[in-house]
Amino acid sequence: MRQQIGILGSTGMVGQRFIQLLENHPWFEVAWLAASDRSSGRTYGEAVRWKLDTPLPARIAGLPVSPATPEGAPKIIFAALDADIARELEPKFAAAGCAVISNSSAFRMQQDVPLVIPEVNAEHLTLVENQSWRRESGGYIVTNPNCSAIGLVLALKPIVERFGIDAIFVSTMQAVSGAGYPGVPSMDILGNVVPYIKNEEEKMQEETLKLLGRLNGCLVEPLGAKMSAHCNRVAVEDGHTESVSIKLSRRATRDEMLAAWAQFTPLAGRDLPTAPAQPVEFIPAEDRPQPRLDRMRGAGMAATVGRLRPCGLLDWKFTVLSHNTIRGAAGAALLNAELLVSLGKLDPVAVPA
Amino acid sequence: MRQQIGILGSTGMVGQRFIQLLENHPWFEVAWLAASDRSSGRTYGEAVRWKLDTPLPARIAGLPVSPATPEGAPKIIFAALDADIARELEPKFAAAGCAVISNSSAFRMQQDVPLVIPEVNAEHLTLVENQSWRRESGGYIVTNPNCSAIGLVLALKPIVERFGIDAIFVSTMQAVSGAGYPGVPSMDILGNVVPYIKNEEEKMQEETLKLLGRLNGCLVEPLGAKMSAHCNRVAVEDGHTESVSIKLSRRATRDEMLAAWAQFTPLAGRDLPTAPAQPVEFIPAEDRPQPRLDRMRGAGMAATVGRLRPCGLLDWKFTVLSHNTIRGAAGAALLNAELLVSLGKLDPVAVPA
Amino acid sequence: MRQQIGILGSTGMVGQRFIQLLENHPWFEVAWLAASDRSSGRTYGEAVRWKLDTPLPARIAGLPVSPATPEGAPKIIFAALDADIARELEPKFAAAGCAVISNSSAFRMQQDVPLVIPEVNAEHLTLVENQSWRRESGGYIVTNPNCSAIGLVLALKPIVERFGIDAIFVSTMQAVSGAGYPGVPSMDILGNVVPYIKNEEEKMQEETLKLLGRLNGCLVEPLGAKMSAHCNRVAVEDGHTESVSIKLSRRATRDEMLAAWAQFTPLAGRDLPTAPAQPVEFIPAEDRPQPRLDRMRGAGMAATVGRLRPCGLLDWKFTVLSHNTIRGAAGAALLNAELLVSLGKLDPVAVPA
Amino acid sequence: MRQQIGILGSTGMVGQRFIQLLENHPWFEVAWLAASDRSSGRTYGEAVRWKLDTPLPARIAGLPVSPATPEGAPKIIFAALDADIARELEPKFAAAGCAVISNSSAFRMQQDVPLVIPEVNAEHLTLVENQSWRRESGGYIVTNPNCSAIGLVLALKPIVERFGIDAIFVSTMQAVSGAGYPGVPSMDILGNVVPYIKNEEEKMQEETLKLLGRLNGCLVEPLGAKMSAHCNRVAVEDGHTESVSIKLSRRATRDEMLAAWAQFTPLAGRDLPTAPAQPVEFIPAEDRPQPRLDRMRGAGMAATVGRLRPCGLLDWKFTVLSHNTIRGAAGAALLNAELLVSLGKLDPVAVPA
Repeated sequence: MRQQIGILGSTGMVGQRFIQLLENHPWFEVAWLAASDRSSGRTYGEAVRWKLDTPLPARIAGLPVSPATPEGAPKIIFAALDADIARELEPKFAAAGCAVISNSSAFRMQQDVPLVIPEVNAEHLTLVENQSWRRESGGYIVTNPNCSAIGLVLALKPIVERFGIDAIFVSTMQAVSGAGYPGVPSMDILGNVVPYIKNEEEKMQEETLKLLGRLNGCLVEPLGAKMSAHCNRVAVEDGHTESVSIKLSRRATRDEMLAAWAQFTPLAGRDLPTAPAQPVEFIPAEDRPQPRLDRMRGAGMAATVGRLRPCGLLDWKFTVLSHNTIRGAAGAALLNAELLVSLGKLDPVAVPA
Repeated sequence: MRQQIGILGSTGMVGQRFIQLLENHPWFEVAWLAASDRSSGRTYGEAVRWKLDTPLPARIAGLPVSPATPEGAPKIIFAALDADIARELEPKFAAAGCAVISNSSAFRMQQDVPLVIPEVNAEHLTLVENQSWRRESGGYIVTNPNCSAIGLVLALKPIVERFGIDAIFVSTMQAVSGAGYPGVPSMDILGNVVPYIKNEEEKMQEETLKLLGRLNGCLVEPLGAKMSAHCNRVAVEDGHTESVSIKLSRRATRDEMLAAWAQFTPLAGRDLPTAPAQPVEFIPAEDRPQPRLDRMRGAGMAATVGRLRPCGLLDWKFTVLSHNTIRGAAGAALLNAELLVSLGKLDPVAVPA
Repeated sequence: MRQQIGILGSTGMVGQRFIQLLENHPWFEVAWLAASDRSSGRTYGEAVRWKLDTPLPARIAGLPVSPATPEGAPKIIFAALDADIARELEPKFAAAGCAVISNSSAFRMQQDVPLVIPEVNAEHLTLVENQSWRRESGGYIVTNPNCSAIGLVLALKPIVERFGIDAIFVSTMQAVSGAGYPGVPSMDILGNVVPYIKNEEEKMQEETLKLLGRLNGCLVEPLGAKMSAHCNRVAVEDGHTESVSIKLSRRATRDEMLAAWAQFTPLAGRDLPTAPAQPVEFIPAEDRPQPRLDRMRGAGMAATVGRLRPCGLLDWKFTVLSHNTIRGAAGAALLNAELLVSLGKLDPVAVPA
Repeated sequence: MRQQIGILGSTGMVGQRFIQLLENHPWFEVAWLAASDRSSGRTYGEAVRWKLDTPLPARIAGLPVSPATPEGAPKIIFAALDADIARELEPKFAAAGCAVISNSSAFRMQQDVPLVIPEVNAEHLTLVENQSWRRESGGYIVTNPNCSAIGLVLALKPIVERFGIDAIFVSTMQAVSGAGYPGVPSMDILGNVVPYIKNEEEKMQEETLKLLGRLNGCLVEPLGAKMSAHCNRVAVEDGHTESVSIKLSRRATRDEMLAAWAQFTPLAGRDLPTAPAQPVEFIPAEDRPQPRLDRMRGAGMAATVGRLRPCGLLDWKFTVLSHNTIRGAAGAALLNAELLVSLGKLDPVAVPA
């Protein structure tokens, strides 16, 4: 029998992706949908402006929109809230004993909140045991990173493991769906580039270093690399493309770099439904990856890498791409939940002995 | 009386910009237009597929398209040819005594060919005196840089002068007009990014260092900085946007950086018609420059700079934008020609004593 | 000396166009800017998010934003308000003795309010004399049509005059700037078409027939043609393109159609600064007009027409294009004001004897 | 066992779609790929520039590219050739005994060549028996319509059946993929509309009337309706959107129109793998269909219809959308082939007794 889950912020772009990705999921079933007060009392089909290119499932359309309070909510909650609202609501659900699998930035950098990509730092999940909610009610908060960090970190992780990384330079070209709906006005992006996304460079930098950091007792020591991010918005619907240069701690040849990516299969054997077989796919064609052509690799969960070549300033440079609302948001949270199931931390959500 | 000029490669995108910019020019008059053999014999109006948003001037439409040979051509030639064709044709015109003001990459890196941005390295023009064509017929070749290098170099020049630069990182988001017509297929760029432009990174790197280099006798010593460029194509019609990080030789405060740009008016007093009053404009708004809004500053000849902020890896980072077919191509060549007039090197083109 | 004018709704997209078009206007000077209450008290430069590709003039940036009340406002007001707000505010200004030159739809179809395109139905302006505001304070309201109607009506007027029109079919492809800012979300229009614009088809149909109608005493009898409009939004920044088929009352040859457009110069001799020399320009190339290439003809005030060919259903079909925020909004109102000056109706605005 | 099929023109955009749609097809297996001479001798993976967002299947990548001659080709050929080449090659394959399922325009209007949409006019397939190739070798040519006609005709067919249609007006907004690759230059379509597609209006008009025509012995009598098409290109990757007005022979209410579409399931019971359950889907939302959101309904094989409302000129107007390279090209041919299998005309391809 599938476990019932709820979605906070279910009518937004990421909420819609949750519904799309959970349709026919073997382990989870959408049972409860919450949204802002003005949606409450309506059916989901009435409340949502569905913007995905697969139809809204009929069963979901008929579900009522519940108020965003823990009463009556399932014990597993996917949260797709703006940071301000997440800061207020997510602790209430954790305190009520829910496992809150959050896509929000609100608690990502909090010391006892794991910021996790399953292929990268699954061991950070033990941080939840330090959360007061966990001790008191069994509930907790687990987060996934910003959509701009996740593809980058997937590409860097196997390199860090084998060769170490001392410096990271990244310049992004991010899709408009990352800003939600209505999000970026068309007047701002048609035939244009906006070289600014509020708080994005800061988040990308600090999250990347925490994700690649080492767990030391109840602390994560961030990776000791220097990093600089430039974040830009471009006229792409889905898929963040990033130009990356890195300085390694130890020399690596091109073949060693490619082998590191090809052999990176840390979830092999776990059989997580949403995990891609190859989390980092290298594409040898000289002009790839491209968002329109490559974002759906691994059902939108793979990071694709290309154009590996020497860097005149650091050691290597390359391009990385990942789907920002699948791997970079809803899919990331879903994979976190699958990992938690696999680790027994969702079965059932209970106060630890 | 205006000097007569000719245009090689007059039907292409850059050729069209030459015609647009030369309409009503106070010093030059378009008198001769050449294009590929299949256009020859027709009028320009018949041969061209005019793609600019100002009408093709009626006088120009009626001019015949001449074969691309020096016979009958004026002594001042603007050349907008593909590199392969330029390599063959430009020397013929120089040997015939023409001043060839070239936008092509063919001879930019040749030791005795000046690669010039008037605000940056006007003194490099003396290299023409080393050219054998110059000695034998009075003719010569002068080049302007690649469209991706020119905005960057304008922004860097005042910084190099005051503080020195040791390292340059740049990631570009380049407009489709840079690839000419038909150029980039729409299937490749709608809703997409192409993280590759053939030879562009190499050109951008070597040209930048030559432009910022020091003339030492008959040689240009390139700037001794490390540099790395990532070049990307985005769905923008005109205007190249670039994310830049730099390491200075000597520390500079934010105010000193801004002052360097604000006070950079090296052509003041020369009264060149196409020179912008302020070659580098800093825009304080946090989300600028943007190609759609800022590419036409200084009538398309200014580089606009914004988002100056500390870099976690080097010293400073910022965004620079310039119009790729005006400042980055036809306007660049035109300003070179105006500078040559101002220096007496076009008046008349003659064998030096 | 230039007459002082004020702008209601000055911070929106059309308000910005008013400022752009009025910069250096020979007859009018921007002296007063109003916007919503939250902008009031700030300078215009602080209150506006300037979205045009020419810089905000420094003098304008320094003007204070006034509250939207007639006290202290000039007697000539350009109004760029949403319909709901216009319905409330415009009568207050008219009652206070202002000539309100309105771009809003609020009063366009009111019987005693002229809906005018100067080249088309200047004689309708006499309707203002029927307005109670006019009799009591000298003030009045004059309107220009919806951005989708204006290019169509310019193209149809010379045909109606010479051959009569019995039926009109039009299908539009409208630019996003017509929806203001933030307007159309980028998620809705990138790589997409939206086949719906709220109330647009109704407005386009009724306004077209009123504009082409005959003044009969104090009434406008709308043109007695059948009409059907399909309105679509496409990924274009500026410029509405329309596919049109018409049935004539009397047969006309292709040459007669072209002559009707070519000879249509109803404002010749009036010397209105914003009037294009050729209000309807026919472009013979088989793939024109196109918004990117043709919207700026006549400084954005010309309607361009192309692809005239027989229609399998009605008589003739063709494509018409016009700039939706210049000819279709701010420029339309400005030309109305110039016509009113030329007719003595703004000089000074006074209670008629 | 699956029947082996070949693809002529396999490296183009439609050829690629054939490969994508045939991957895992229950009845057909790609066994032979032909392309232009310069591709011959290479593997398909080397010869193709794969432009779809699903990976090129590895087995297909390894197939050799064969020369475009019938020797060694399977007896079932999907042809995705330009019209000029089709006119030369398709008859050779038919004469050699192949069933040529063609997407080209070359023979669509030829009297003895069926132009077929399985849901619309399956009975026209008997025309193949009139082909000389059929009599001599068993081979024949069957065609599917232009991508702009197919969605329209699907939407019109149930209306014609129930109420008759006397007049059709249609204005299209067509995706760039319809022009193949490289196809439409990005300079022509970014931020733009091109109101012209060569020969498209003629094809759309004559094919629509033939498809809706009645088979009378060995002739198709085209539908006796008047028709006018305006064809435009817009900045959409996939999916043609069309504004349609129609005049009915007999009055129909809105509910009757909706019922005609809802009950249109002419292939029910045939179990064709590529046939959508609902060939015409009506979407009640006021702003649909939209290409980005609706083109993949029915796995890209459904026509979606929306905005049904009275027309001021004819009787009803609405918007129709269909995927131009799936339902409009490769999927159309594939469904034709499935229908031929279902009718026994491909099993095996043999000279009729």
